[in-house]
Amino acid sequence: MNEDQFFKQLFTNLPHLPKEAYPIGPGDDCAAIALGTDQLLLIAADQLIARRHYLPETPIRHAGRKLLARNLSDIAAMGGTVQSCLVCLGFSPDQMPDELNEFYQGILNEAQQWNVHMIGGDIAQTLHDTVASLTILGQCPADKVVRRVGAKPGDFLMATGKFGNSFETQHHLFFTPRLHEGKWLAEHQFANAMMDVSDGLAIDVARLAGASNCGVSLQLSDIPCRQTTTEHALYDGEDYELIFAVSPSKFSPLLQQWPFETMLTKIGQFTETPGLTDQNGIAISTEKAWDHLKSKE
Amino acid sequence: MNEDQFFKQLFTNLPHLPKEAYPIGPGDDCAAIALGTDQLLLIAADQLIARRHYLPETPIRHAGRKLLARNLSDIAAMGGTVQSCLVCLGFSPDQMPDELNEFYQGILNEAQQWNVHMIGGDIAQTLHDTVASLTILGQCPADKVVRRVGAKPGDFLMATGKFGNSFETQHHLFFTPRLHEGKWLAEHQFANAMMDVSDGLAIDVARLAGASNCGVSLQLSDIPCRQTTTEHALYDGEDYELIFAVSPSKFSPLLQQWPFETMLTKIGQFTETPGLTDQNGIAISTEKAWDHLKSKE
Repeated sequence: MNEDQFFKQLFTNLPHLPKEAYPIGPGDDCAAIALGTDQLLLIAADQLIARRHYLPETPIRHAGRKLLARNLSDIAAMGGTVQSCLVCLGFSPDQMPDELNEFYQGILNEAQQWNVHMIGGDIAQTLHDTVASLTILGQCPADKVVRRVGAKPGDFLMATGKFGNSFETQHHLFFTPRLHEGKWLAEHQFANAMMDVSDGLAIDVARLAGASNCGVSLQLSDIPCRQTTTEHALYDGEDYELIFAVSPSKFSPLLQQWPFETMLTKIGQFTETPGLTDQNGIAISTEKAWDHLKSKE
Repeated sequence: MNEDQFFKQLFTNLPHLPKEAYPIGPGDDCAAIALGTDQLLLIAADQLIARRHYLPETPIRHAGRKLLARNLSDIAAMGGTVQSCLVCLGFSPDQMPDELNEFYQGILNEAQQWNVHMIGGDIAQTLHDTVASLTILGQCPADKVVRRVGAKPGDFLMATGKFGNSFETQHHLFFTPRLHEGKWLAEHQFANAMMDVSDGLAIDVARLAGASNCGVSLQLSDIPCRQTTTEHALYDGEDYELIFAVSPSKFSPLLQQWPFETMLTKIGQFTETPGLTDQNGIAISTEKAWDHLKSKE
């Protein structure tokens, strides 16, 4: 069983969420809570595990930054604006008090840049490694929020930035969450469906297409690679770039109006036939993707 | 440095929270977000660490239950109603897929009892032990929310339930969060200040009094003990009972109107002089309390 399947069977057994209060079900980048106004509260939570998401020699301040930034990316993927966060830190017995401060400073420096307030959390000691989690809160006008579902066959698949080689280049520590881009895309209603790429381009494109019961034909040669091969771009993960579906009629206006320096590339097209293929119709495996449950099989 | 001091210096260095959006600052049982209606959104996050918060032989289902229940207790402490949660699970490499399901089932069974929806989270593998965190969301009418601050000298200190011996009796796994009691106290405006007891009665009474720059004189012989001594009742922790301040004029109506089977006991009185004393004015130490940063000194 993989992570997607695990959560699918878990959520299948749950009582259904009342749609009025929770207009976006599980499986999107964020959950959403209706506020009784024209806004949705967006909320997501993600973890950071020592030796898995950062190396022992990584300054703990950068780990803190990464924990916040990867959560910011989830708000970006819905087109939202960030607001506040809660941080749970389970710190290793090896960690010095100064390092705890460093960890929080890494979060707080990044938080200030995005006007995010830290409003709560918890701190406790683990028996071995450091494990931290962060809950991010944001908001979005209910009529502008962009979900994973919504792509139509024929839509172009667009991507911000470059892919692959994230760990070696330290991109995974220092990436800029695409909050401005996501919000702009939502506000101008260019994105029919959107998500951020964290587990790997191939698996995440397959998820984005699958959410709308579509497939995707990838133009492999068009995928922007981060000083690496297409293979790495497809499978490395931790890119924290946005991928989204745009209607062909809006493609040209999008390119003309795009106000950012961030690279924007058409890397494929949504198809009626489910599955992920290259430009010649050859199936592309999603299997090299990182899966947190893979070792449990 | 202890946990209180660590967070105090951390939060002192933070940009101030805009009061309008976040009417309750850090240091309460929950943070609160103004919704632009008459309701506050309450939010808190707490962790559960294997071998620290539960034993290796504890069925993982009970650990899941505890993780949710201790967060429910934080909403109870504000007088709120629970709504939804997000769960981050960092699972040990030793854990079988069935156990992951068991963990979530422990959460979900308890969640259903309280009408709490699980709306998101994350799952990943750690290198050693299991570490999980949960973010709880609830709400409360803004004019009814009960904070830690608000006690006045002369107020009686009340407590639900019993104290001490929580680990040995497995109370820490199977306690009932005082959601009904907390909400009732808030709705009927009996509680001037309130919190839940997790780190130990002595330290948490000191925190409740300290929030209002008061002290407390404890009537030690009146503290209900869970088959143990007053010493254990004061310092063991993990009781997840409510302690609150009631005005002397409301004490009698409170006892008459209290609609629950849950024990309710007057265990002391708030004083002008800061600090924690017994009925004879002898200082009571808070130092045996569990402190997650104590080993860092």
